[in-house]
Amino acid sequence: MDWRSGIADAFRATHVPGQPEELADAWRARYRPILTEVNTGARPWGNFDELHLVTLQDLLAERGIQLPVEDSRLLVRAWHRLQPWPDVHIGLELLRRQRVTSALSNGHLALLVDLTRNADLRFDCLLSAELAHSYKPAREAYRTAARLLGVEPAELMLVAAHPWDLEGARAAGLRTAFVSRPLEYGRGSATREDPGADLSVKDLSELAQRLRN
Amino acid sequence: MDWRSGIADAFRATHVPGQPEELADAWRARYRPILTEVNTGARPWGNFDELHLVTLQDLLAERGIQLPVEDSRLLVRAWHRLQPWPDVHIGLELLRRQRVTSALSNGHLALLVDLTRNADLRFDCLLSAELAHSYKPAREAYRTAARLLGVEPAELMLVAAHPWDLEGARAAGLRTAFVSRPLEYGRGSATREDPGADLSVKDLSELAQRLRN
Repeated sequence: MDWRSGIADAFRATHVPGQPEELADAWRARYRPILTEVNTGARPWGNFDELHLVTLQDLLAERGIQLPVEDSRLLVRAWHRLQPWPDVHIGLELLRRQRVTSALSNGHLALLVDLTRNADLRFDCLLSAELAHSYKPAREAYRTAARLLGVEPAELMLVAAHPWDLEGARAAGLRTAFVSRPLEYGRGSATREDPGADLSVKDLSELAQRLRN
Repeated sequence: MDWRSGIADAFRATHVPGQPEELADAWRARYRPILTEVNTGARPWGNFDELHLVTLQDLLAERGIQLPVEDSRLLVRAWHRLQPWPDVHIGLELLRRQRVTSALSNGHLALLVDLTRNADLRFDCLLSAELAHSYKPAREAYRTAARLLGVEPAELMLVAAHPWDLEGARAAGLRTAFVSRPLEYGRGSATREDPGADLSVKDLSELAQRLRN
């Protein structure tokens, strides 16, 4: 999902002072640290709505910005209505024709239901770190997915754009495919690579093609 | 799903001695008792593949029938490939246009993935008693579904053909819709009713219609 555009739009709509894309990046930068707090037990389990609210409040406090409760709620809800990258709809359909496809997100199930309904994306199954009560990249998040799908970890492939996520999957015994998302942080941002991935593709249609061969 | 025809076909294919529909009914009759054993703690958690294997072995032993392991496996796997009733495909689609639709089955997720892929049924989400480690009609199975969908129990409606399931849902605070499946146990079998249901319909299309009004 193109979270940055969607979240920047939400900052724009709520007239939060500052540059919308920079605000989106700054909010997102608080994502992995708070997941680590949960995974290490420093913070009790919270779903994405709860964690997004905490990190938003921290961000706004740091900048001395006051925001009506209703606008905070709108911003948190914006993570439920992100748009997918242009290749995802067709690419997912091509993958689903040849493989069992499941989401495996750190986002909670209710958020995934909203995202996929809103974007008309069809998975065979939605799975979430919520079901393991451990956030990716913790091993248990990937292992729980394999267990629920009734497969061995090595029969499951994580497809993701973030090397930290793919590394976690490999450590749990999964296969991995890296999808390049050069526009995730906007034009001209640093490109990522994941040399450890079993496959490296530019989009989901290419992945479907490569898996067919 | 029309489990009886699918399971009778599997008994036919494996040449188990006896009348296929009667064998299907006798196997199914062991379903609720073994779920009760799990829910009361008399038996450790087992998914449908595990429980179906136990009840099949009990049934065959009772009748003095020997069956190759491969045939037992085929029979257990037959529960992954049932056909839906004729109204389900279109009815589910009509429901999904106006509501969030989720499966909430006692079957485990891997089985639900197979069933829905095989029958090309589209839900927004697959949920299972497996996620609560409590089988319906235990309250926790329904409450877990509401929690994962991010709704109050009273905002969730269980749609089912079995009064015991609908009663469990009502006890957990859900709304209920009874769908009549007069052919579940074959032509001329006893008809069921559920006077406690909020809605009573003949198929899923009628339910979509009634919910729209």
